[in-house]
Amino acid sequence: MQTLTVELGSRSYPIHTGAGLIEMPVLYTQHFAGRQVMIVTNETIAPLYLERLKAQLGDYQVAEVILPDGEQYKSIEYLEKIWDGLMAAGFNRRATIIALGGGVIGDMAGFAAASYQRGIGFIQMPTTLLSQVDSSVGGKTGVNHPRGKNMIGAFWQPRAVIIDTNTLNTLDQRQLSAGLAEVIKYGFIRDSDFLAWLETHIDALLALDTAALNHAIITSCRTKADIVAEDETEQSVRALLNLGHTFGHAIETHQGYGNWLHGEAISTGMAMAAKWSQLCGDINESDVQRVEQVLSAAHLPIKAPTNMSAERFIELMKHDKKVLDGGIRLVLLDALGKARVEDQVDEKALAQMINDYPRANLPQ
Amino acid sequence: MQTLTVELGSRSYPIHTGAGLIEMPVLYTQHFAGRQVMIVTNETIAPLYLERLKAQLGDYQVAEVILPDGEQYKSIEYLEKIWDGLMAAGFNRRATIIALGGGVIGDMAGFAAASYQRGIGFIQMPTTLLSQVDSSVGGKTGVNHPRGKNMIGAFWQPRAVIIDTNTLNTLDQRQLSAGLAEVIKYGFIRDSDFLAWLETHIDALLALDTAALNHAIITSCRTKADIVAEDETEQSVRALLNLGHTFGHAIETHQGYGNWLHGEAISTGMAMAAKWSQLCGDINESDVQRVEQVLSAAHLPIKAPTNMSAERFIELMKHDKKVLDGGIRLVLLDALGKARVEDQVDEKALAQMINDYPRANLPQ
Repeated sequence: MQTLTVELGSRSYPIHTGAGLIEMPVLYTQHFAGRQVMIVTNETIAPLYLERLKAQLGDYQVAEVILPDGEQYKSIEYLEKIWDGLMAAGFNRRATIIALGGGVIGDMAGFAAASYQRGIGFIQMPTTLLSQVDSSVGGKTGVNHPRGKNMIGAFWQPRAVIIDTNTLNTLDQRQLSAGLAEVIKYGFIRDSDFLAWLETHIDALLALDTAALNHAIITSCRTKADIVAEDETEQSVRALLNLGHTFGHAIETHQGYGNWLHGEAISTGMAMAAKWSQLCGDINESDVQRVEQVLSAAHLPIKAPTNMSAERFIELMKHDKKVLDGGIRLVLLDALGKARVEDQVDEKALAQMINDYPRANLPQ
Repeated sequence: MQTLTVELGSRSYPIHTGAGLIEMPVLYTQHFAGRQVMIVTNETIAPLYLERLKAQLGDYQVAEVILPDGEQYKSIEYLEKIWDGLMAAGFNRRATIIALGGGVIGDMAGFAAASYQRGIGFIQMPTTLLSQVDSSVGGKTGVNHPRGKNMIGAFWQPRAVIIDTNTLNTLDQRQLSAGLAEVIKYGFIRDSDFLAWLETHIDALLALDTAALNHAIITSCRTKADIVAEDETEQSVRALLNLGHTFGHAIETHQGYGNWLHGEAISTGMAMAAKWSQLCGDINESDVQRVEQVLSAAHLPIKAPTNMSAERFIELMKHDKKVLDGGIRLVLLDALGKARVEDQVDEKALAQMINDYPRANLPQ
């Protein structure tokens, strides 16, 4: 087991990662305020892990809400089902919510906790690699509005994050690789040592080696925690977390959510950002090849979809929500392990780069 | 104009009270983060004050959501109309919400602000005396769930509270008196000097004398702010704010919400609490008469409803949400200007007191 404490003063909390942590209830029951526990999970995860978790909670008053699996259920309507479940169980403000699932479950259960009786405790038990390295830090919770993703929500910190790496045994290979895209991102933007470690441990991670997973997860969470601590209000360095995301969001939007997984889209997005960084003279061709090689080794795509013109890319990138005043904002690589934000983008040259960029459909 | 600063570190905010403050936009526009302003109000208030407010905001991008008037619309369904309005207007996280209305509007608009894009700024412009002295301090926002009042919400502080006492000109007399019940409560629980002042200024308040209103509003808000600061987590002294509320909630519940106004129910509740305090030997008969006289002078009821037995009172008081473990918790008066919480209540003697207590229907 490895542990990282996210330092937030009175709201500090531990992230524990290791094999079999669901069966170590002391790690999470010590963070309960009362005896009432609501487990929020989904129809995919429930048959796999719900009974295992409940078996640890014999001394508590346990209720559960099982949502359908998928981003399309990350809605106000399904959020209400969590509130309804809490009310039907008669739970008070000392109740604790456990989010058992991926990012959608964590975001929804977290916002339910933030808003039930003006705020109750919650514990994250993320079961996908993406949610383990992305949602464990930052305190973002919420649901989608019909007109926009993550538009309704709150900043609400968990009391603890329990990452049982055994839950990755049931994650399909494509989802695992998609999670690795975010892990690799932390190497690109901030940590050349970690990137070098990843280049020699991708196979161990794909094989779910526990020690390798623990190291990759804790390093990713620590990097994100450092960045968030430096920039709580998302003004500056936090933008670096969006490496590959401006290209990637364009791909996700054009393909329709779920056809390209988020991690797949940002993998290609990071490769495109690396190429653009090379054209800007910031990194050289061998750097770009290293970017492409580590992503490919993780079974991630690096080529753009065949059905997207440069014009379509530019159009969608201008509508990215992180963009101010209709320009294009890109995160570029100054070196492998060092990123910066660039607001002054030569749109014509960028269109030319995208036009020349290699294409392929999934799987690549 | 009088001003009170509620001290909350980086979240400190001013409460301004005075006649005509809606027409002094510098008081609130300085607290806007950006150029986008959403006014949330209701169908009663909109015809009276909406255009007057919008006339001050010519330099801003203004949108509005007008909700139906009434506690029954303090629901998730109508909260969604505020979120929808913000999304339809394309408002970003630098937008500001102005809550123009009574407690229901303040609670709903405040929670919409707390949850839109994980939190945007909001300005309270309370238009009822009750909301001016009650909702201005404490940061409570939220909506009702079908199974319970105020069950969904957040603590979210306003950037400023603008109390234009001219808005009381259109408040009906019964609502004004109901607001005075909360004002008088602050004298009973904490401030004998203020109580003495109230005894000589009730007529001025009922006549909407600006200086008297400013003094009563600021003193009430200051007392509440002091109590909340001493006890942010509602463990101890904050319970004193519930003087009269255990009896009062029983009356409201039995009569159906809206038949007895909240202020009317707690006025009778405070008179009953005073009577019980006398029976417990804490205050004497002349104290009880002072309690009754100041409430009556404010045109508030002090007698219990004719249709409620002692048994019904006890039954409902045991279900009050502030009660722990099925007992009855009462706030009693040790003196006029000093209150305490009593958890050890002799239920049989209490039933006898209620049984003997004078009855009358509204208006009294």
